[in-house]
Amino acid sequence: MTDPTIAEPTPAPSTPAARDNWGRWGDDDERGALNLIGPAQVLAGATACRTGRTYALGLKVQRKGVPLIDFRPTPERYALFRDTDAGTFAKLGSDGTVGFNEDVLTVPTHNGTHMDALAHCVADGTLYNGFPAAAVEANRGASRCGIEKVGVVVGRAVLLDVAGHLGVDWLEPGQKVGADLLESCRSAAGVTLGAGDVLLVRTGWLDLFASLGRGEKPPFAQPGLDLSTVDYIADHDLAAVGADNAAVEVIPFDAGGYLPVHVALLHRLGVVLFEHLVLSPMAADGVVEGLFVAAPLLVTGGSGSPVNPVVVV
Amino acid sequence: MTDPTIAEPTPAPSTPAARDNWGRWGDDDERGALNLIGPAQVLAGATACRTGRTYALGLKVQRKGVPLIDFRPTPERYALFRDTDAGTFAKLGSDGTVGFNEDVLTVPTHNGTHMDALAHCVADGTLYNGFPAAAVEANRGASRCGIEKVGVVVGRAVLLDVAGHLGVDWLEPGQKVGADLLESCRSAAGVTLGAGDVLLVRTGWLDLFASLGRGEKPPFAQPGLDLSTVDYIADHDLAAVGADNAAVEVIPFDAGGYLPVHVALLHRLGVVLFEHLVLSPMAADGVVEGLFVAAPLLVTGGSGSPVNPVVVV
Amino acid sequence: MTDPTIAEPTPAPSTPAARDNWGRWGDDDERGALNLIGPAQVLAGATACRTGRTYALGLKVQRKGVPLIDFRPTPERYALFRDTDAGTFAKLGSDGTVGFNEDVLTVPTHNGTHMDALAHCVADGTLYNGFPAAAVEANRGASRCGIEKVGVVVGRAVLLDVAGHLGVDWLEPGQKVGADLLESCRSAAGVTLGAGDVLLVRTGWLDLFASLGRGEKPPFAQPGLDLSTVDYIADHDLAAVGADNAAVEVIPFDAGGYLPVHVALLHRLGVVLFEHLVLSPMAADGVVEGLFVAAPLLVTGGSGSPVNPVVVV
Amino acid sequence: MTDPTIAEPTPAPSTPAARDNWGRWGDDDERGALNLIGPAQVLAGATACRTGRTYALGLKVQRKGVPLIDFRPTPERYALFRDTDAGTFAKLGSDGTVGFNEDVLTVPTHNGTHMDALAHCVADGTLYNGFPAAAVEANRGASRCGIEKVGVVVGRAVLLDVAGHLGVDWLEPGQKVGADLLESCRSAAGVTLGAGDVLLVRTGWLDLFASLGRGEKPPFAQPGLDLSTVDYIADHDLAAVGADNAAVEVIPFDAGGYLPVHVALLHRLGVVLFEHLVLSPMAADGVVEGLFVAAPLLVTGGSGSPVNPVVVV
Repeated sequence: MTDPTIAEPTPAPSTPAARDNWGRWGDDDERGALNLIGPAQVLAGATACRTGRTYALGLKVQRKGVPLIDFRPTPERYALFRDTDAGTFAKLGSDGTVGFNEDVLTVPTHNGTHMDALAHCVADGTLYNGFPAAAVEANRGASRCGIEKVGVVVGRAVLLDVAGHLGVDWLEPGQKVGADLLESCRSAAGVTLGAGDVLLVRTGWLDLFASLGRGEKPPFAQPGLDLSTVDYIADHDLAAVGADNAAVEVIPFDAGGYLPVHVALLHRLGVVLFEHLVLSPMAADGVVEGLFVAAPLLVTGGSGSPVNPVVVV
Repeated sequence: MTDPTIAEPTPAPSTPAARDNWGRWGDDDERGALNLIGPAQVLAGATACRTGRTYALGLKVQRKGVPLIDFRPTPERYALFRDTDAGTFAKLGSDGTVGFNEDVLTVPTHNGTHMDALAHCVADGTLYNGFPAAAVEANRGASRCGIEKVGVVVGRAVLLDVAGHLGVDWLEPGQKVGADLLESCRSAAGVTLGAGDVLLVRTGWLDLFASLGRGEKPPFAQPGLDLSTVDYIADHDLAAVGADNAAVEVIPFDAGGYLPVHVALLHRLGVVLFEHLVLSPMAADGVVEGLFVAAPLLVTGGSGSPVNPVVVV
Repeated sequence: MTDPTIAEPTPAPSTPAARDNWGRWGDDDERGALNLIGPAQVLAGATACRTGRTYALGLKVQRKGVPLIDFRPTPERYALFRDTDAGTFAKLGSDGTVGFNEDVLTVPTHNGTHMDALAHCVADGTLYNGFPAAAVEANRGASRCGIEKVGVVVGRAVLLDVAGHLGVDWLEPGQKVGADLLESCRSAAGVTLGAGDVLLVRTGWLDLFASLGRGEKPPFAQPGLDLSTVDYIADHDLAAVGADNAAVEVIPFDAGGYLPVHVALLHRLGVVLFEHLVLSPMAADGVVEGLFVAAPLLVTGGSGSPVNPVVVV
Repeated sequence: MTDPTIAEPTPAPSTPAARDNWGRWGDDDERGALNLIGPAQVLAGATACRTGRTYALGLKVQRKGVPLIDFRPTPERYALFRDTDAGTFAKLGSDGTVGFNEDVLTVPTHNGTHMDALAHCVADGTLYNGFPAAAVEANRGASRCGIEKVGVVVGRAVLLDVAGHLGVDWLEPGQKVGADLLESCRSAAGVTLGAGDVLLVRTGWLDLFASLGRGEKPPFAQPGLDLSTVDYIADHDLAAVGADNAAVEVIPFDAGGYLPVHVALLHRLGVVLFEHLVLSPMAADGVVEGLFVAAPLLVTGGSGSPVNPVVVV
């Protein structure tokens, strides 16, 4: 199916004070700031491919050794078929020399490296763009703003290596990344940040995690974006934001409420989020921009998807 | 993590009659023909991006309305959290105005649009490259040739629209696509097919499926590649092959054995397969080449992964 | 843990017109009519054991050949370990001669033979006994009336073989079983029905199902209890009701509403239900009473449980 | 379906030195020592019901607070339907006042309180009774000795409270329970142990577990049966053995091999095992015998089942 994003991007609202994108792409819009990615943005990403190097931003999907949130189930892989299932394969036509391995995966949509759909976040009884919260049910899932409405995210990625910019291996747990720090990092990197871009922020969190001893629990607090970044993201009309931490935003949350940066980005601006991205290899190579490709599983009604995003440079 | 494919491709074996790639990239190689994709191939793909249009090749992941094989479980999405979980979110810090939806997915690795890892196929007691079949166990999965060894697949896609070439909506169930037909289709399309390319073959199968009435079962037989295509694929040193049908290869299978084209491609040549790809929108737009990006979930020990590949043109 | 039912049963309300048991066992009660089963009722069941024969009332848990409701997932069994996992067992200490098979089950709580918890049914914003519907959340499940509050159900079963009484193999799809028919069947069987008993009703539905040809779908309509049975059940102060059909009650539903007999029994009277019980072997042996033992999995917050009830005679 | 155990028990082999029951109930037997339970044994159990008290021996099925083995997945309950699914229930016929909660369970067969099927254990290439190990495959499960062959286990339970007998809250981790200790405990309790009985052994393990502080891990070692109990079990021709620990047998294992008591009991004698039984309430009440009822889910091809056994006294 063709990506529905090929229409020309719509101008940002003239009153940025509103700080939301509701209605900007129509009352029926379920894709939010992804509408900012048109062919020009895709080609801007493709133009950034100069060396042919690729980066997989997804963590391994496994039971241990990766950051997993305890209140979500652990990803599991079970054997559906094993090549030793001789009786089964004989019935299917094998002469006994050939067999196949197959698995079944049980994966939470929001553990490991994943993408938040706009249906993820509810505030004041609504989803992004004012759809009623009741548009998401347990059984049928999200009839509005589900992950299947995303299609694919292809555009220009800009990596801001905040930890590297500050000369540390990782930011401290709980350390806020504000708009000024993002801008100073961007400026030092000499990279532009334009409408429809995908912003990737490296806090070093996964390196902190990797430094833990066996059985050692990571701290509850995490570095991440504070609320001052919301205007920064809106001003630049970014399409999506990703980071190497659990929630993009700082933990404990910035002043006020529960996951306030999520609410501001997902619910108000329609900016989708990518979490637990593996960004250190790009940072180590000095990459600051590239072609970004993230293709969620098109789970009908899904509130998110595990994903293995790619950057090509 | 950086894609390990950036080394220069190794030349094809001097004795093509061997028709296998075992040892070609070392005795420890677990990536097979994906080694044929180096930076040059990635850039060849990027160069094919001229319009900024994108195509999502993945089917919707849902319980009905998509082709699902009965002996595999149906993909399921369950509610892990709903925004109405007020008590839960209050404990997590919400003041009652904010909630989140999250799901858990149960997805077979080989139903819907998916990618076969080299660990999928066992023949004569071995995996690709001679690894013992016992390297795959039920509990720990594939210690060799698992899907997590793939990283990402980024390269140049070539679409051969066989159905379109023959002027039909879809090939007949059971109709064989041989090397001659592929070559005639390629030639008519005026597209080159080079080392490290990803070959996409459109048989029209998904259109046949879409034409079925409600409750009508698709035929068992499917059009697909016959054994004559193996040499064609090896001669062109292709990195991967995808199609819009269930098994890439023709059903009933071409002369001899069980899934013989799988064995020849996965087990002998180390060529990975993509199945149930949505190719008709590309064909309708007359696309014959583009940048191909497929990023499987990096399931440790996995024999495959659901995937939503992308083509950018 | 000791069954909390050993207190003496409380008398039925003096105004049976109320037709509910809210408050009867206290404002905090979450077990409903199971409170009617005290030691005397258990011993009444044990006294009915005269031959030492046992009956398993549970259907096989499998993907095919049993009645499964399409809007629920199919039960699945996956391999967690296979004895061939030599590497795994070697790490655990095996010398290679010993291995173990283990599975993982994915089972809906309300498919196949199962027990409804009182948390299953919500009407007018409440659960049984007036607990707010919000006591059940997606993530934490039922904080009120969950299946784990049941413990075990042990008492006297009375089987009314309605199909046998009418001299048919099975009642017609949609055929109503009313209070008069139950009473005429009971009377003909010469069996008493007392406070705290578990009523089992055989409609023959599973025999109709078993008579279907391969691939033949069962009719949507099913025979079952109509609303006139609610007073009958309340008048006899029964603790639980089970049947061999999908919903105990007749389908299409008796006049008015959605699953009205469920609402009357679960929500108003607190009478738990057992569905898809295998009752024909008991009927064939002429069994009319016995010791009933059903022990749901004590799933914290669960709305029901698959179960394999037992009758001993 | 009728329990197939109603035939009269077969005499024990005249050469007890053989210490196995292969062939004792025919070459096709898949139920092992459960064949020792005939109507007389069931009635012996029923006769032990004198007070009408019941005990649920199953642990809660939940993510925390119960002993769970780390290499198995955690049991999970997901929301399949919530009463708030107004759109779904409207389509099904509700007028908006009625809704239902339903869940889906993912439960390992061998975590929490469970029953081992004879298909669980493989030694020297065979299952119990000499069936080839290959009778168990990943996909189709156990075609021999699966849990569905059990039906139900109804008989006389004898509780030996070893911890109570020794005057301790729990046995030490790694402490062996041998035949002499069992016999001394039995003798002191003044209870007989006969053919077809179900032996329940309390080590106090679950009380040790309950004494742990939050986040404190239980020791690896556990008290349990040593190899000397195998003859004791065989000499008494017991049908099944259960305990309150993880593996019935002592950990670290008694001299030699991997899970040697499992091999001796499951593989050689065909004696099924129940693990993680809640036995302390019975012990606290001084119960030494009762009617035992365990009804596994009849999972076709299953290697075991979660279960909530019942004792009635």
